[in-house]
Amino acid sequence: MDILALNCGSSSVKYQLFDWKKKEVIAKGMVERVTIGDSFIIHEVPGRETYREEYECPTHEVAIHLIIKMLADTKHGVVKDIQQISAVGHRVVHGGEKFTRSVLIDDAVLEAIKEVQHLAPLHNPPNISGIEAAKSVLPQVPHIAIFDTAFHQTMPKAAYTYPLPLEWYEKYGVRRYGFHGTSHLYVSKRAAVLLGKAPKDCNIITMHIGNGVSHSAIKGGVSVDTSMGLTPLEGAVMGTRCGDIDPAIPAFIMEKENLGPKQIDSILNKKSGVLGITGHYTDRRDVIEGAENGDERCQLALEIEAYRLKKYIGSYAAAVGGIDAVVFTAGVGEMGWQIREKTLEGLEFMGIHLDKEKNRNTMTRKRESVITRPDSPVKVFVIPTDEELVFTEDVVAILEGTYADHMNFRYSFASSEFQRK
Amino acid sequence: MDILALNCGSSSVKYQLFDWKKKEVIAKGMVERVTIGDSFIIHEVPGRETYREEYECPTHEVAIHLIIKMLADTKHGVVKDIQQISAVGHRVVHGGEKFTRSVLIDDAVLEAIKEVQHLAPLHNPPNISGIEAAKSVLPQVPHIAIFDTAFHQTMPKAAYTYPLPLEWYEKYGVRRYGFHGTSHLYVSKRAAVLLGKAPKDCNIITMHIGNGVSHSAIKGGVSVDTSMGLTPLEGAVMGTRCGDIDPAIPAFIMEKENLGPKQIDSILNKKSGVLGITGHYTDRRDVIEGAENGDERCQLALEIEAYRLKKYIGSYAAAVGGIDAVVFTAGVGEMGWQIREKTLEGLEFMGIHLDKEKNRNTMTRKRESVITRPDSPVKVFVIPTDEELVFTEDVVAILEGTYADHMNFRYSFASSEFQRK
Repeated sequence: MDILALNCGSSSVKYQLFDWKKKEVIAKGMVERVTIGDSFIIHEVPGRETYREEYECPTHEVAIHLIIKMLADTKHGVVKDIQQISAVGHRVVHGGEKFTRSVLIDDAVLEAIKEVQHLAPLHNPPNISGIEAAKSVLPQVPHIAIFDTAFHQTMPKAAYTYPLPLEWYEKYGVRRYGFHGTSHLYVSKRAAVLLGKAPKDCNIITMHIGNGVSHSAIKGGVSVDTSMGLTPLEGAVMGTRCGDIDPAIPAFIMEKENLGPKQIDSILNKKSGVLGITGHYTDRRDVIEGAENGDERCQLALEIEAYRLKKYIGSYAAAVGGIDAVVFTAGVGEMGWQIREKTLEGLEFMGIHLDKEKNRNTMTRKRESVITRPDSPVKVFVIPTDEELVFTEDVVAILEGTYADHMNFRYSFASSEFQRK
Repeated sequence: MDILALNCGSSSVKYQLFDWKKKEVIAKGMVERVTIGDSFIIHEVPGRETYREEYECPTHEVAIHLIIKMLADTKHGVVKDIQQISAVGHRVVHGGEKFTRSVLIDDAVLEAIKEVQHLAPLHNPPNISGIEAAKSVLPQVPHIAIFDTAFHQTMPKAAYTYPLPLEWYEKYGVRRYGFHGTSHLYVSKRAAVLLGKAPKDCNIITMHIGNGVSHSAIKGGVSVDTSMGLTPLEGAVMGTRCGDIDPAIPAFIMEKENLGPKQIDSILNKKSGVLGITGHYTDRRDVIEGAENGDERCQLALEIEAYRLKKYIGSYAAAVGGIDAVVFTAGVGEMGWQIREKTLEGLEFMGIHLDKEKNRNTMTRKRESVITRPDSPVKVFVIPTDEELVFTEDVVAILEGTYADHMNFRYSFASSEFQRK
């Protein structure tokens, strides 16, 4: 049984094929520049050289055809027959309030995903195109939607309601939803394993720090708060997104620069964050290098990012009444020891005692590490995330009828026997 | 020596006359509905009945004339001659980056206050009108400006810089400024006295909770962070202001409802916060009463307000590396024991052990109280604020040439001998 995971962005389609029996990724890759011309595929198979091919994909459907062709290709493929693909899991960014778990996609589900697309106008439309395209290419297999928002649907009303006119919630669904749910789910379950506790018995803060950044306060195994909000713009400093700012600023700048709503939204999403502060960089490796070479704007960007991460740790510890662990994950969380060190400095008062040496030596996307001292009451873990594994396990569990929701389903990785491959 | 403190809003002028020798307020009051018709004055003298008089004030100048007339009135007045008024202290909301302390107002200072008025278009223009009017009515005495923002000018760059295009800072001064500075100054100095420590030896979080709400993280006696930002819209939930929200929401709603920048700004400032959630109330007494009577929106408003206050305490404790005390002040902070109890629940992990009984019994605008248990490592104080006393002491110190800035000036209330009158 092979499970295909698809993640359709506006101009890209990422894929991964997972062999459920062997519990192994057998191929993965990405089609880039879909719909915008000069598109190409990067196709990776463990043990083989990475393969790249130019191939014009004017639509997501063509891109998905290309992926299927590649997977079954006599030279580059990994399956003899596309019949080996038993199901497809689709990442859907926004599930609104309708979806609290992964679901089999039927017409009603597809309709419901379309209904909330106004909440994520950049993300849901390509997700929908991807589902429709994949259904037409692989009509015989079940298609399952996995939502970025579902994990956070356990938040209490006081955490998800904004202090705004309540009509906006009723009319437009304005509330906190949160994103990166599968990542927060995966690393929080792994952290409970590393703590040697059941998820229901621990409080954990998960920090997903990549180009996008979000944090989650997880109490007794469920998300009770998260930093991204109605959209993925709120929260921490990100590569190009501003995160938390004075909400008067958008209108202030629109007046000064005579901008419309779409234009200000674009600047806050694409020209702000680390890019806005440094003027040049979004990749934190460039920022760290710049800071080391004396670039003051890079130094400031690092200070701001770490300072705001530190405040979120304090904030979420207060939200859940004290924590057992903090988890760093995703590109920067896993690799950026400098940012972790700055973030955790001065948190001894709340029981976080960093082992600086261990922290510096932890730069890997493969291994789980504890970076606090053995006597630290609160543990800090670096845990490589694996969102695709959550996709795959949700798909299989739905196929096998064993899935209720993420709180009551036993994931393979929520066990001390789990071995990362 | 009598010092007049003036606080000019868009349609009101508050005043207080302080007898410096006796260290007493000898009169205070407010002219309301200035410039909008049907204006009147409320004039209070300790030991006398409150006096109210209708008096048309089409301009701030007329209102200030009225105040002076009232202070020297044979029946209602408290001074024989306006010559007894030695100086006037003016509250100025926004001092931008130019003012880090209170200053004597000369033409250059007035010009500089005008230059930053675009940052506080609702507040600085009436402040300026008030200064000009008072100077014309009392041309013979020194006029001194006391800024809401000055106390927070010690914030480090990483705390005041937004993750936004840096040009916006350079061109328009977009950064965090913070407000309520004199209140944070007063209660933090009092808290140090109650702790029996010098301000430089303690870390304090001050929570000014009135209709407007702001918090400050005070490390070693100086403000290192504060929740209000470029404008007083950012931060905690307020009576009618939203505080922290996803910065994508303003543009999202502008598109949905076809609003311009001024309109969205007005809704976020005047129709949100506690009013937005409850649909009816801004006064927390009404909200508490509603919640007790089963109104779910009132219950939700209280939950949200307390939850967000709790998160700020955690956040600022992390920012300063652990705290000695938390201070509640201003109307809700001093009177709202229910909100304090909800806010402090679950913070035992960081050393805050509330004495619930003491907290319930603390509802006064006159007395300083400690509401934590004697063995609580972190103390929580309720301290009635006294911004006018800061105004007065700054004015006197500038007149006497003893004032450097709030860090190096010894206020009378920063002493254990200080007695509140």
